Amino acid sequence: MIQTPEVCEGPDFEKGGGLLPAIAQDVHTGEVLMLAYMNRESFQQTLLRGEAVYYSRSRQKLWRKGEESGHVQKVHAIYVDCDRDCILLKVEQIGGAACHEGYRSCFYRQVTPEGLKVVAERVFDPEQVYKKP
Amino acid sequence: MIQTPEVCEGPDFEKGGGLLPAIAQDVHTGEVLMLAYMNRESFQQTLLRGEAVYYSRSRQKLWRKGEESGHVQKVHAIYVDCDRDCILLKVEQIGGAACHEGYRSCFYRQVTPEGLKVVAERVFDPEQVYKKP
Repeated sequence: MIQTPEVCEGPDFEKGGGLLPAIAQDVHTGEVLMLAYMNRESFQQTLLRGEAVYYSRSRQKLWRKGEESGHVQKVHAIYVDCDRDCILLKVEQIGGAACHEGYRSCFYRQVTPEGLKVVAERVFDPEQVYKKP
Repeated sequence: MIQTPEVCEGPDFEKGGGLLPAIAQDVHTGEVLMLAYMNRESFQQTLLRGEAVYYSRSRQKLWRKGEESGHVQKVHAIYVDCDRDCILLKVEQIGGAACHEGYRSCFYRQVTPEGLKVVAERVFDPEQVYKKP
């Protein structure tokens, strides 16, 4: 999916002080995989590559999703909300898991009266995928 | 869904400076309906009522979704992400539309090389639903 950022009316990054939340949803199952943030540059990189590029608030730099794990997100479609201050990506999640904890979705824990309850199964072992040399 | 906030380990509101993004997803179709924000009080109100209560950043007060339109969101389940700084609600959207513009989902526009393209149909006419007396 190649698009030309110059002519692309889209998210209003001014509203978010430069950063907007971006939801990644599995294009096939509809499962919400994760939420991360994008600045204008990461959004444009996403358009150009056709793969999700976020902005890491903790590392304060562009974060090409999957750059370490290989679990990239191929972008099938991008939407903005009514206020143009939130982005929705429909993605194909390579490797089957979006979460660095090894789960398909980062939302693998449900809020219950007894506390948080894990309601998913791990797809991979994080220690294997992110093992240091 | 009644839960006791006191014993409920859950989102880490400290991380978001008091406000965390909350995604509302249709429990039946999986459609992502909207993203809004919650503070601790709105989260606790959501647990107690079983209906989504957000915090309006523009109006700086609690916002019981549907308080004006009647289009409340009945909460079926709540999840937190791996960092506990994002909330996912699975909801039943009363009235069939989450967006104040009259669309089922706030993400009714797709980003295309030609600009934003409306890819959904209106469920209601906002002027009728939000008409002033």
